[in-house]
Amino acid sequence: MSFKQKIEETSQAKKSSIILALDFPYQNPQNRQSLLDRAVEMLDTVSPYVCAVKINHHLVLPLGTFGGVQTLVDSTHEKGLLAIMDSKVNDIGNTNTVIAEYYFDAGFDALIANPFVGWEEGMKPIFEVAKRRQRGVILLAYMSHKGAVEGYGQSVRDPETGAESKQYLSFARKAGRWNADGVVVGATVPDKIKEIRMVLGEEVPIYAPGVGAQGGGVETALKAGARYLIVGREIVQSEDPAVEAESLRQKAELAKIKNEK
Amino acid sequence: MSFKQKIEETSQAKKSSIILALDFPYQNPQNRQSLLDRAVEMLDTVSPYVCAVKINHHLVLPLGTFGGVQTLVDSTHEKGLLAIMDSKVNDIGNTNTVIAEYYFDAGFDALIANPFVGWEEGMKPIFEVAKRRQRGVILLAYMSHKGAVEGYGQSVRDPETGAESKQYLSFARKAGRWNADGVVVGATVPDKIKEIRMVLGEEVPIYAPGVGAQGGGVETALKAGARYLIVGREIVQSEDPAVEAESLRQKAELAKIKNEK
Repeated sequence: MSFKQKIEETSQAKKSSIILALDFPYQNPQNRQSLLDRAVEMLDTVSPYVCAVKINHHLVLPLGTFGGVQTLVDSTHEKGLLAIMDSKVNDIGNTNTVIAEYYFDAGFDALIANPFVGWEEGMKPIFEVAKRRQRGVILLAYMSHKGAVEGYGQSVRDPETGAESKQYLSFARKAGRWNADGVVVGATVPDKIKEIRMVLGEEVPIYAPGVGAQGGGVETALKAGARYLIVGREIVQSEDPAVEAESLRQKAELAKIKNEK
Repeated sequence: MSFKQKIEETSQAKKSSIILALDFPYQNPQNRQSLLDRAVEMLDTVSPYVCAVKINHHLVLPLGTFGGVQTLVDSTHEKGLLAIMDSKVNDIGNTNTVIAEYYFDAGFDALIANPFVGWEEGMKPIFEVAKRRQRGVILLAYMSHKGAVEGYGQSVRDPETGAESKQYLSFARKAGRWNADGVVVGATVPDKIKEIRMVLGEEVPIYAPGVGAQGGGVETALKAGARYLIVGREIVQSEDPAVEAESLRQKAELAKIKNEK
């Protein structure tokens, strides 16, 4: 079963389209054990309300891939959830392959990568490793921060056809062609979600980060065509993460029912 | 003293423009200790012939930032060399800051980042952390692999001026404007090195990876305007890394003298 199918099933079973971004602020790396304890506790608290967990360098750098992060991935799986590594891989193929092998060894079900590096000797080797190991690749299409307009939002000329197009639409088309398991589009740019959804249909689901702390709205993002919402600070830094996660989950389920009508 | 000045001085003192990319092929993460031993040995063997060491995920993922990689960074400094983290950072500012803090905590003197993420809430926070901690930021301008043409090589339209330009020249101009400590341009594309050098002059030095294993030539890259050569597999996977590194160092020194004439 592909990652795309696995997360769809998990999401339906758990009645949740929320992905927990297990991101904690920088802290003195001397306190690694307390950071790991905090992450384990957050995962325990929030796991009933989400379908997957996304881990980034906030945890990989202080805790290490093997040991710390692997423990969290194992625990994620034990709770019946999927684990996504938000590595935003953007190196040459040879290096991308090494990165993918190590993260898949640590148990991750999918990796996030940046299609800007191109196919030959870039993304192709990652897709090959993922296919061989039955894991997923999710591509960036438009990020949630202001500066995204400079790169993701720029107009580019297709070297083959000569036609001018927006970078994010070019990325979306590549995601379709390369058979990616999903694309990331910021919840802060619902108009872009809508446009990308027009390109990809239901074939390549949209993952939208940036809800809450960064200003994106649950209903707006889902109405525009996002399939999953990635939420970090809004849950992790709230006073009651379980209540916050359950409230977001419910909001998303209601919005989905509304959209289906 | 800025990172740009530090590496210039180190390079002159050591009479070497070679940066060792301490990259090893993927291996079973169970064998972490043997990988660390191998990296320490390679560093000991090659350090007399290089001015800096570049570390990538090949080591960070299996060894961990703190512990394994930090040991290598400490050893790099003890040998009077500088340590560069090839993280190709390309996340939102909040995450980029966390990444930079951890890598700088581990002792790295500079980070490599991808200017594609843009300035506001993207690169700006990294430059701020680097400035506060007196470290460097080196930006990608054109990479050494085939697929680079899709992204780095594409034509883009400047959202402000409306003028069409090559992506790598747009990145080079940003590197100048943002006061980066260097740009990375593949040794495999000497024509691009030349064009970027025309944009940046001597203000922002060019780091060229891809010599040897990837097909780039030492003399061609330096003649085109590269200041430093990043060499990995060509040294690390050679039968005699010290001989190979010294041979590359000499070749580069001769090419530099030739260029000055």
